[in-house]
Amino acid sequence: MTTQYGLIAIGNAIVDILAQTTEEFITSQAAFGMNRGAMSLIDEKRAAELYNLMGPTTEMSGGSAGNTMAAYASFGGKGAYIGKVANDQFGKVFAHDTRAIGVHFDTPPLMDGPATAQCLILVTPDAQRTMNTFLGASTRLKSEDINEDLIANSQITYLEGYLFDDDQAKAAFIKAAELVKKHGRKLSLTLSDPFCVVRHRDDFLKLVENYVDILFANEEEIKELTQISDADEAHRSIAQHCDISIVTKGKDGSSVIRGTETAHIQAITPEQLVDTTGAGDAYAAGFLFGLTENKPLTECGRLGSLAASEAISHMGPRPITPLKSMI
Amino acid sequence: MTTQYGLIAIGNAIVDILAQTTEEFITSQAAFGMNRGAMSLIDEKRAAELYNLMGPTTEMSGGSAGNTMAAYASFGGKGAYIGKVANDQFGKVFAHDTRAIGVHFDTPPLMDGPATAQCLILVTPDAQRTMNTFLGASTRLKSEDINEDLIANSQITYLEGYLFDDDQAKAAFIKAAELVKKHGRKLSLTLSDPFCVVRHRDDFLKLVENYVDILFANEEEIKELTQISDADEAHRSIAQHCDISIVTKGKDGSSVIRGTETAHIQAITPEQLVDTTGAGDAYAAGFLFGLTENKPLTECGRLGSLAASEAISHMGPRPITPLKSMI
Repeated sequence: MTTQYGLIAIGNAIVDILAQTTEEFITSQAAFGMNRGAMSLIDEKRAAELYNLMGPTTEMSGGSAGNTMAAYASFGGKGAYIGKVANDQFGKVFAHDTRAIGVHFDTPPLMDGPATAQCLILVTPDAQRTMNTFLGASTRLKSEDINEDLIANSQITYLEGYLFDDDQAKAAFIKAAELVKKHGRKLSLTLSDPFCVVRHRDDFLKLVENYVDILFANEEEIKELTQISDADEAHRSIAQHCDISIVTKGKDGSSVIRGTETAHIQAITPEQLVDTTGAGDAYAAGFLFGLTENKPLTECGRLGSLAASEAISHMGPRPITPLKSMI
Repeated sequence: MTTQYGLIAIGNAIVDILAQTTEEFITSQAAFGMNRGAMSLIDEKRAAELYNLMGPTTEMSGGSAGNTMAAYASFGGKGAYIGKVANDQFGKVFAHDTRAIGVHFDTPPLMDGPATAQCLILVTPDAQRTMNTFLGASTRLKSEDINEDLIANSQITYLEGYLFDDDQAKAAFIKAAELVKKHGRKLSLTLSDPFCVVRHRDDFLKLVENYVDILFANEEEIKELTQISDADEAHRSIAQHCDISIVTKGKDGSSVIRGTETAHIQAITPEQLVDTTGAGDAYAAGFLFGLTENKPLTECGRLGSLAASEAISHMGPRPITPLKSMI
């Protein structure tokens, strides 16, 4: 049966607030729970305090799954997005930027409650990003926001692990997984972040065993999930539960397992490395675009590497150069 | 007498919303008053319509005089800013970005009324920017917002011509000019935009004759102001009314006249030309930084060219590379 969309993503709808910073600043914030190179959840008060300490910023739409949809659309893919913003200026920015790239987005904004989610991203001179997220309105995603028609009409539904950080959003997440099964579509999950895996290991394992067809993780995340200290061994162990599982390895490329088939994909080094924000999100977009276009695994991986390479060559997570033109 | 600040700028406090676009799109909008390469004023309704037509955007603090202060601070200069934002997310972004670079900013936000000013900036493949400004809260700058202490404590007060687009802001503008005279400081003006000069020619001429010590203009603006068709002749004609007058000429550099002294300054070509937004604002910052550091005219001009070169090498008007490190 043909579908209207190749990919629908469900995630935390976030506006990124990016600033360059120093190593010293990151170190000075460790006592407040900041994790260099990872994502930490912060509350509204801490967000205001941290923002005051940051240098001049640039604002742009982000969110892991939102970034993936932006890259998927940039390849020419047809997609949709489900996520919760507030009825404020940042919420309007997020909605605009999603629709402006041709992604269907009609989740109603939250009319009363916290502001649109913000991710304060600090980029160090080595291009590494350290993220600090105030989830705000994004956690108010409800089961009612999961539109069955959209899921039924999408080849693949893609979920970000970060959604598990809130019970209400988690319920919406499970509903989506059930609907995917009901309509015979494919479910894809990204583990999002090693600390996110630590927070939700058992739930993630159940999800992988019962629902997930296509799993994305990096080496740290797959080791955390399986509690196996060798990443390749961890990958082989989890691969038996999914149609396709992908482990990304930064500059060492990525590994893909489908049944007895294993592929190693090389990374593509960009001309300049500026900001690694969104590399994993972009990789997933390229890989999934390849899948929805019925490409072989190695080509799916190459498209993933291509999108990741573009993402890290500039500030911000979403593509600047149309990815379609780079294929 | 020593002063606390080298430079204080008064301008429209604006958040920029930037998107890349095509030549065709700019042409298609001419019927709605869009002026390629220039700034058009738009109302809130038109701003919403145009925003809907734009591709994915990046938000960052802007405003002509605000950009000049950002570059001045990036050179290591000590400065202050006066301008009106609303009590909304974009207003908080503008205030944060101003203070985060060490610029003093304490103009109270507008509590009731229109949103923070927005400039919808369309960048074409030739790196030219076409600006569409909804002035919003910025026009609510009042005479009471002009802090006499700040002006008395600044070597140079810098005004953007764009302020003349609103009667209330214009009154604040005149008050600032009077205070500069009262305290024996220097007044600098940028004509901002040829269309702005057309709108306010007589007022600008009176201001130049009676108040302005340091005038910035480009070739189009100086020709419009003087109604003389040769830019060099126009420059000589206006130079008799100011201590220093500067005419910028894009890739042909700039000309400076002080009394009988004339200097021609070369432009500095950036490695890559990405977006010309803020080139004039940055030039003024470099020139004024040189002046407040008592540098000779040619060095002031060189610093202007340096700042302009940095500004046009990336998206957005404000410096990314610290200008201090480039001197």
